[in-house]
Amino acid sequence: MTDVPSIDPTTGQVVEVVARETEPAQLAAICGAAAAAAGPLEQLGRGGRSRLLRGMADALEGQRDAVVRLADRETALGATRLNGELTRTCFQLRMFAQVLDEGAYLEAAIDHAGTTGMGPRPDLRRMLVPIGPVAVFGASNFPLAFSVPGGDTAAALAVGCPVIVKAHPSHPATSQLCFQVLRAAAAAASAPEGTIALVHGFEAGAALVAHPAVRAVGFTGSLGAAQALVRIIEGRPDPIPFFGELSSLNPVVVTPAAAEQRATELGRGLVDSYTLGAGQFCTKPGLVLVPSGAAGDALVDAMTEATAQRGAQVLLNGGITAGFEKAIDRLRTAPGVELLARGQDGTGEGFEAVPTLLTAPAGPLPTEVTEECFGPVTVVVRYSSAEQLLSSVAGLPSSLTATIHRGGQETELPARLSDALRQRTGRLVFDGFPTGVAVSWAQHHGGPWPSTNSQHTSVGATAVRRFLRPVTWQDAPSELLPSELRDDVVDVPRRVDGRLEVPPSLGSTDPLLVAAPPA
Amino acid sequence: MTDVPSIDPTTGQVVEVVARETEPAQLAAICGAAAAAAGPLEQLGRGGRSRLLRGMADALEGQRDAVVRLADRETALGATRLNGELTRTCFQLRMFAQVLDEGAYLEAAIDHAGTTGMGPRPDLRRMLVPIGPVAVFGASNFPLAFSVPGGDTAAALAVGCPVIVKAHPSHPATSQLCFQVLRAAAAAASAPEGTIALVHGFEAGAALVAHPAVRAVGFTGSLGAAQALVRIIEGRPDPIPFFGELSSLNPVVVTPAAAEQRATELGRGLVDSYTLGAGQFCTKPGLVLVPSGAAGDALVDAMTEATAQRGAQVLLNGGITAGFEKAIDRLRTAPGVELLARGQDGTGEGFEAVPTLLTAPAGPLPTEVTEECFGPVTVVVRYSSAEQLLSSVAGLPSSLTATIHRGGQETELPARLSDALRQRTGRLVFDGFPTGVAVSWAQHHGGPWPSTNSQHTSVGATAVRRFLRPVTWQDAPSELLPSELRDDVVDVPRRVDGRLEVPPSLGSTDPLLVAAPPA
Repeated sequence: MTDVPSIDPTTGQVVEVVARETEPAQLAAICGAAAAAAGPLEQLGRGGRSRLLRGMADALEGQRDAVVRLADRETALGATRLNGELTRTCFQLRMFAQVLDEGAYLEAAIDHAGTTGMGPRPDLRRMLVPIGPVAVFGASNFPLAFSVPGGDTAAALAVGCPVIVKAHPSHPATSQLCFQVLRAAAAAASAPEGTIALVHGFEAGAALVAHPAVRAVGFTGSLGAAQALVRIIEGRPDPIPFFGELSSLNPVVVTPAAAEQRATELGRGLVDSYTLGAGQFCTKPGLVLVPSGAAGDALVDAMTEATAQRGAQVLLNGGITAGFEKAIDRLRTAPGVELLARGQDGTGEGFEAVPTLLTAPAGPLPTEVTEECFGPVTVVVRYSSAEQLLSSVAGLPSSLTATIHRGGQETELPARLSDALRQRTGRLVFDGFPTGVAVSWAQHHGGPWPSTNSQHTSVGATAVRRFLRPVTWQDAPSELLPSELRDDVVDVPRRVDGRLEVPPSLGSTDPLLVAAPPA
Repeated sequence: MTDVPSIDPTTGQVVEVVARETEPAQLAAICGAAAAAAGPLEQLGRGGRSRLLRGMADALEGQRDAVVRLADRETALGATRLNGELTRTCFQLRMFAQVLDEGAYLEAAIDHAGTTGMGPRPDLRRMLVPIGPVAVFGASNFPLAFSVPGGDTAAALAVGCPVIVKAHPSHPATSQLCFQVLRAAAAAASAPEGTIALVHGFEAGAALVAHPAVRAVGFTGSLGAAQALVRIIEGRPDPIPFFGELSSLNPVVVTPAAAEQRATELGRGLVDSYTLGAGQFCTKPGLVLVPSGAAGDALVDAMTEATAQRGAQVLLNGGITAGFEKAIDRLRTAPGVELLARGQDGTGEGFEAVPTLLTAPAGPLPTEVTEECFGPVTVVVRYSSAEQLLSSVAGLPSSLTATIHRGGQETELPARLSDALRQRTGRLVFDGFPTGVAVSWAQHHGGPWPSTNSQHTSVGATAVRRFLRPVTWQDAPSELLPSELRDDVVDVPRRVDGRLEVPPSLGSTDPLLVAAPPA
């Protein structure tokens, strides 16, 4: 048995041994329990699972101090950020409870029997059902929001899928504590044994993805790790859906008009954004396209100055630190790439990174510049014409986000940029920064490969669709239908004989939207 | 250049050379034209594409006689069936036009900026957008409904994706004629050049799936061919979604009560179903679970008698014929499998198959019995207890359909069967036959691997979801938003600040439902 150590990133030293890696026999038992839990968890119904999610949110908040303290010790992300992350996770659990309460996510549809233009039609009733047990791979960079608690776990449990989390080795103690809190909350909400489980270790993760009981995989992490898991899935006799959130450059374009109007503000904001969480956000701006000329110079000067004032930051683990250093070396030796500024050196202890601002020449960008580099670094490229800008944009890989900073009332260039960038992103941001992903009904966190490999989101209300599959009942007796598909029940939105019907009882405005903005 | 021959399946002889296989340079030009068409086809808008689809339906009906005559010569499926298939395809085109007119498929959502439980939220607006050019692989068994015209083509064009069809070599002339009809209809509807294209040849199909311009693949065909295409996709620098409809056993369970009440009717109906279209339906019942005892005997006797009276049938091509003969040989040498009945021998000419009824012993079923066998054959298994029945069901692979025939008012055993079968199917049929897939809002044609590899359908209104991906606009100026996401437009259902809103102007009941059933 191999120990699972908890490491302090500020020193690089092992603080304690948290657990042992999960052995094959344990994994088999865990997967068996998840398979056995699938039916009862679905039977709990939308109401029961809504209470389960709210109970989990309450339980996490009840352990807030202990969870944040432990997560900070394992990640060095700081108490402010981690408190915010816990709030986010609880908000998300409660939001998915609302998604359950409302029920539109079921996509319930009823076509009564009748004669159509292509002949007689039987009675057909369609609804989404849980796909089965889901394997969730926790991410290193969000120990509370994309890990044991987080979007994948909440989305899967919401719709009735048992969850088996593979703990990230960067924060095993936090994972273990959160798992205990969630497991107790599940028991308190009368959810079946096997509703949630935790495994540790690389081998256990691989075996999990290969296990017949597992019906889908939610993953947030590196492209390389994702590709290894995809290969395991391809080797299954029954390949299963893989939802990965992988790699993203997140280009930011500043138009000449925007640079004219707010160069300093934009420069400082960009440095805040690329150094947020030590540059370990999947939405970190990794490339900034800035106009040549005086206004662009002022913006880059502001970035240079702000970068130089930054202190060294602590990264999450040794692997990220080594990857960051290697990427900086590759970037600095790429053709035409030059250093603009470095932050201040740190103590030299632990997993340290110095914020780094680089510049690369316009024109076709080398892969060193267009690949995601995890950590506090970004590359500025200066363009000298709209055509040069649009040609650079056309060569970019797909990203989770793409950002346009435009001048007040500017329309023509933003429209051309919008057309070009929409092809290669899942979220188009105007006059803001890509870091910070609000959890809401209209949020989308995804995009074409390599940002994700799917047409689905890992953040926002529609994230549940990943863990559902449609079933149609044909001429089924009423008592064998799910309650939402019976003729006498109208507590969820449904499409009946082609017409979308929303029960009048359903919510007015989003109760989680505490204060509406001024009109 | 290699010729593409059109073969008469009743003789196995080449009738004419239809085309040449598509060469690499031609394929590159076709893919380039499709990429160039993507923007203009989206710009055509929902209204423009609705007119495009209706125009295509009208044009196909205008050429009905020529299309049906040619398809019958290439497939021997008969004029009645092929006329019905053409009607189905036109019905489907018009139904997707309705899907466009209504607009709920966009999943439009608006979250206005405000303060939430996790802090301030920007203005977020989400909608589905076309994924880009789609490669469609025509199926041999539905030359008019899952081929050049058909569900995949209609769904992709509906939502604004240019389509490149790989013609099935079983009906190249029909493919060519339908393509000409659809291309002319596209031009008449002001759709861009490149809206629809056709390629011929195995190599061209492989190159199509690998081409950077192609953003998704719709495929109906064999598991083996699908796996070859999936391997090509995995080799792309940017893997794309693959929507395959592959292999399906379609088990039918007859409960003891159903056998008591209607043994002869069920036996005859099952033979009609398994020989429909010469057993070349993806929903053909390939396994029938019948109770032991007198009522079950009567049912099997009816199947035996009806099978013996059937004449030989013409299969679609030489490959299917060879596969059918090989599968029958494998089945007949599998442990315990016995022949119950054979239909009458035919002329011995062309691609002929004799309907074949087999039986296999209860208990763990060998793979020969649980694998799909394309053509007019089915296997009867007799069970002697509910436990034996449920244990057989638990070992079945996933299928597009699963059918339960129950006694009037019978509830207990159907409920247990329903629970077990729902785990392994996309459509649960009661007291009917799985063949025949109505096109409607609530239809689902899919299921866990190997029936399909996805969580999406290839039949019914929601089939469009395969060719869409979400995009969220953050703080976008109104003029850069799609019209459906602007504050002043309310002609589509939208979710606004969490609340689902349906414009009162939207449809009453499905206009395609000509006559409603008695209440």
